[in-house]
Amino acid sequence: MRLAIGILAILTLVSSEMALANDDVRKLQSVPSNWAMQLGNYAGQRYSPLNQITAANASKLHVAWTFSTGVLRGHEGGPLVIGDIMYIHTPFPNIVYALSLKDNGTVIWKYEPRQDPNVIPVMCCDTVNRGVAYADNRIFLGQADNTLVALDAKTGKVIWQARNGDHTKGETQTSAPVVIKDKVIVGISGGEFGIRGHLTAYDVNDGHLVWRAYSTGSDADVMIDPQKTMMLGKPIGEKDLGLTTWPGEQWKLGGGSTWGWFTYDPQLNLLYYGTGNPGSWNPAQRVKDGDRAKSDNKWSMTIFARDPDTGEAKWVFQKTPFDEWDYDGVNENILADITVRGQARKALVNFDRNGFAYTLDRQTGDLLVAEKYDPTINWASHVDMKTGRPQVVEKYSTYANGVDTNSEGICPAALGTKDQQPASFSPDTGLFYVPTNHICMDYEPFEVSYSAGQPYVGSTLSMYPAPNSHGGMGNFIAFDAAQGKIIWSKPEQFAVWSGALTTKGGVAFYGTLEGYLIAVDMKDGKELYRFKTPSGIIGNINTFEYDGKQYIAVLSGIGGWAGIGMAAGLTGEHEGLGAGALSLALDKYTQLGGVLTVFSLAE
Amino acid sequence: MRLAIGILAILTLVSSEMALANDDVRKLQSVPSNWAMQLGNYAGQRYSPLNQITAANASKLHVAWTFSTGVLRGHEGGPLVIGDIMYIHTPFPNIVYALSLKDNGTVIWKYEPRQDPNVIPVMCCDTVNRGVAYADNRIFLGQADNTLVALDAKTGKVIWQARNGDHTKGETQTSAPVVIKDKVIVGISGGEFGIRGHLTAYDVNDGHLVWRAYSTGSDADVMIDPQKTMMLGKPIGEKDLGLTTWPGEQWKLGGGSTWGWFTYDPQLNLLYYGTGNPGSWNPAQRVKDGDRAKSDNKWSMTIFARDPDTGEAKWVFQKTPFDEWDYDGVNENILADITVRGQARKALVNFDRNGFAYTLDRQTGDLLVAEKYDPTINWASHVDMKTGRPQVVEKYSTYANGVDTNSEGICPAALGTKDQQPASFSPDTGLFYVPTNHICMDYEPFEVSYSAGQPYVGSTLSMYPAPNSHGGMGNFIAFDAAQGKIIWSKPEQFAVWSGALTTKGGVAFYGTLEGYLIAVDMKDGKELYRFKTPSGIIGNINTFEYDGKQYIAVLSGIGGWAGIGMAAGLTGEHEGLGAGALSLALDKYTQLGGVLTVFSLAE
Repeated sequence: MRLAIGILAILTLVSSEMALANDDVRKLQSVPSNWAMQLGNYAGQRYSPLNQITAANASKLHVAWTFSTGVLRGHEGGPLVIGDIMYIHTPFPNIVYALSLKDNGTVIWKYEPRQDPNVIPVMCCDTVNRGVAYADNRIFLGQADNTLVALDAKTGKVIWQARNGDHTKGETQTSAPVVIKDKVIVGISGGEFGIRGHLTAYDVNDGHLVWRAYSTGSDADVMIDPQKTMMLGKPIGEKDLGLTTWPGEQWKLGGGSTWGWFTYDPQLNLLYYGTGNPGSWNPAQRVKDGDRAKSDNKWSMTIFARDPDTGEAKWVFQKTPFDEWDYDGVNENILADITVRGQARKALVNFDRNGFAYTLDRQTGDLLVAEKYDPTINWASHVDMKTGRPQVVEKYSTYANGVDTNSEGICPAALGTKDQQPASFSPDTGLFYVPTNHICMDYEPFEVSYSAGQPYVGSTLSMYPAPNSHGGMGNFIAFDAAQGKIIWSKPEQFAVWSGALTTKGGVAFYGTLEGYLIAVDMKDGKELYRFKTPSGIIGNINTFEYDGKQYIAVLSGIGGWAGIGMAAGLTGEHEGLGAGALSLALDKYTQLGGVLTVFSLAE
Repeated sequence: MRLAIGILAILTLVSSEMALANDDVRKLQSVPSNWAMQLGNYAGQRYSPLNQITAANASKLHVAWTFSTGVLRGHEGGPLVIGDIMYIHTPFPNIVYALSLKDNGTVIWKYEPRQDPNVIPVMCCDTVNRGVAYADNRIFLGQADNTLVALDAKTGKVIWQARNGDHTKGETQTSAPVVIKDKVIVGISGGEFGIRGHLTAYDVNDGHLVWRAYSTGSDADVMIDPQKTMMLGKPIGEKDLGLTTWPGEQWKLGGGSTWGWFTYDPQLNLLYYGTGNPGSWNPAQRVKDGDRAKSDNKWSMTIFARDPDTGEAKWVFQKTPFDEWDYDGVNENILADITVRGQARKALVNFDRNGFAYTLDRQTGDLLVAEKYDPTINWASHVDMKTGRPQVVEKYSTYANGVDTNSEGICPAALGTKDQQPASFSPDTGLFYVPTNHICMDYEPFEVSYSAGQPYVGSTLSMYPAPNSHGGMGNFIAFDAAQGKIIWSKPEQFAVWSGALTTKGGVAFYGTLEGYLIAVDMKDGKELYRFKTPSGIIGNINTFEYDGKQYIAVLSGIGGWAGIGMAAGLTGEHEGLGAGALSLALDKYTQLGGVLTVFSLAE
């Protein structure tokens, strides 16, 4: 009887959790023919159970149809597919199209907001947008001008709008919202403009603000309870670290922007995301009492696990305390159940900009594994597994080297071993498939003063291919996050800035900056198919099934940080961007564009 | 002996003609693997002897690679292929790319002129450009801002520039130059801005102006000799018709722009082109002494045959004297040797905007056939074969109906039964394959005053599908120009605004405004293949062979007059354009773009 009650309790718990998550989103993502979320599912796995396309037949892929978005510059994110409708989005001006799959993408509706073009210069790393969210017959879009909008998915008509920030203060929106239960969760961009980052939940029905958790400031503002919020296996203990680990009021300009991806575990009812770099990039402006040990600049560079109902932080893990390299901590946290050292774990895996792949227990935040996922990483020797702190190699400390001193040969570069391009996890192989950058840098911090809405960077960068890379600036790798080991690595000429896809069919997909859509065998990385799309790919490869047939779809359109030289017409190195030279080489291969390309197996 | 001398004389004549034409151009266009001129060859046939793609295998076509041009709006013209290099161009700002065929279009060089953006509003019908010419290792481009530029084909470096007009007076360049012997021949656009049209020859080596022939004005200016220049089988006789058929000095604003295609017969050493509408569109402003019979508005709407060495007019044929409908006479004159009424003819065939297909003797200018190539044409009952004059149906005379009166139900509309989209002639079938419009209009002339650089239109239009067309606004037809008969007709939903291609393989190609590349069986018009390119097609389909394989290539990018509503963001009917409503329906199918799509047979 006790057992029966126990089971009943569990069943009740599970079914109420089911009802709570967001019923519609969960249902839609469980249908294999859909691609219902930007990352495929709440766990952020970017894996599809579709299996028509296999290693044996992938060479028969061909282009089924194409659709120009009518917008140039960097196209990040990817198409959603719900039933027989595809939803795509563009960079600024953030057009959204609903396309019919019945007839090669006929436009069902088009939403084109009017936005102040003065938003454009406030976008550090191109006018990108990482896509829309779908739930409850609505499309949710975070516009560059900080308008969060809910559209009727059938008509494209605006249902409500909310204002999430102010571009005159350097705040913009680039990330894809995610819907959890009755809330839309959105981040904010602007870490290079001295903003103060936050994550905000809006009510799906009317757009009212439910909670907002800042990345810096008091515990109340950050929604931390130092007695309850866990860090490295125990409560944080100390109060207001979001204030006390900063000099003076620097936390107000402290960055910690939240422009990455959001994942969610419905069973644990925990929402995961990371915060970006502290402001400015000049570490000397963020040191407290001249003592690095006092200057973690919390809670920048931190993975947060929050209760999406209340916003409360359940646990935190800061990856790069006192950042000296712009190793934004916003990359996606992929939820995967894997066995680590013989023990089944509800894991969270994060391929950080700083070059370490972190495997955490996603319930507790305990650190399980932290290993480099590119062998050239040199700024830290390793991560101390007790403190979670990277052990900085002093010669690469831009703080130790000093203001106005060029620190040379730091690997990875500011754009990280991986940036926004989301990785994929295959439950079939238990491996992660990761698009990576293989680029190093020289970094010279300088004193910068704050002026609202103006760049607040404080460093110049020069970036170049990693040494001994034969000029290759990227790799597509298969990674074992339980062991912290690269299984195979496929080199690419440029940074692999596109989101990866894995499939039950044993084929993984990614795109290249030159514009190639590439299919590889998940076993060994052997290339099975490549096709040159109209422009460089910084978008994510998604898959869906329509009318019994599996399709692959991707937005091409060179830009983003990796292509900022081309996208913004820059001709040299620019303060804080440093990618001018990298992307200038690109223009031999591709030009600006904005095109959806849809693939299927030839008959 | 006399016979031998005769043969020798002929051989000498032929070989000296060969040397004279432009050796390089003739050689390049005779190599089947090239597509060396915008119209394929001097005769303007847009036919290729390549035959790998056949009616039997065209269904196996697939996309080989793609390339975004980085420019939106209307992409007219098409790619040239010389050896293993492809040259493509864009609308304003008129970028030219040299792409390597070896590796899916890697950029060898890019030429991007800086042009005054004030050129854009002076371009009546989108920022189009119909392509570059290649000769003697140079690329010739007519920029929108009236700069004619010669580029080194290996490097893209500017060799010389010439100034062909003044955009502050409404003059622009949209047409593709053609190289004949040591001259580059270029036209001028701006018939809706009160310009005075001209054709000009520049020296290929240094760009100096060799001759210029105006479309209106004195015989000296038009380069007519009334005692020698032939018209309808005899010398013109009367002097200065380019002055005397106009009221007062209206000929100075008389239009006759020369923005169409140019063809050339090396044997006859004759260059052919047509002149555009007289200005303004309000015929009452062009009537002399209130008498239509005195008001031919010569030499608007006229086919000219000129000696390219001297510019002298050898014969003339005015298709629409005293135009009342904007039936621009600029369409291409295709040179074809066909049998008319049992007699082998060196023919010139012109599918005019006014809806009549004219077959002339291209040596003499004699009129052989003039028949409607769309049965709905109603503004004229027929062409009088003695006078060459269309017999106007009085109820459709916008002059007779009067200023500020709406003349309704005129077929075809101002954009003609065919506009710039070039047709194709197949020597295999002896037929012409013609992309056509199937659109009628209401036309209301009004008094307009001239101001340099401002629109000088003088009419409002409303355009709509032809009656009994079940909503279809275009047809792709096969036409027998010897008999003046449609052989078959394939209806399309929108105007077929793309240039046609025929091939030895028996397959014809065209594109649609929705963006489809379509292959049909030349026998019967049966559709063999269709593919939806990124944007609507107003470019021309070209073919080439590389590494033993036949390719098909097309620029997509909606715009042009047919897509002006989308290209210029117009939301209603506009003075003189009238195409707003037509192209608004288009946005359900396609959006702005600029992408080269290259096709081949799947392995």
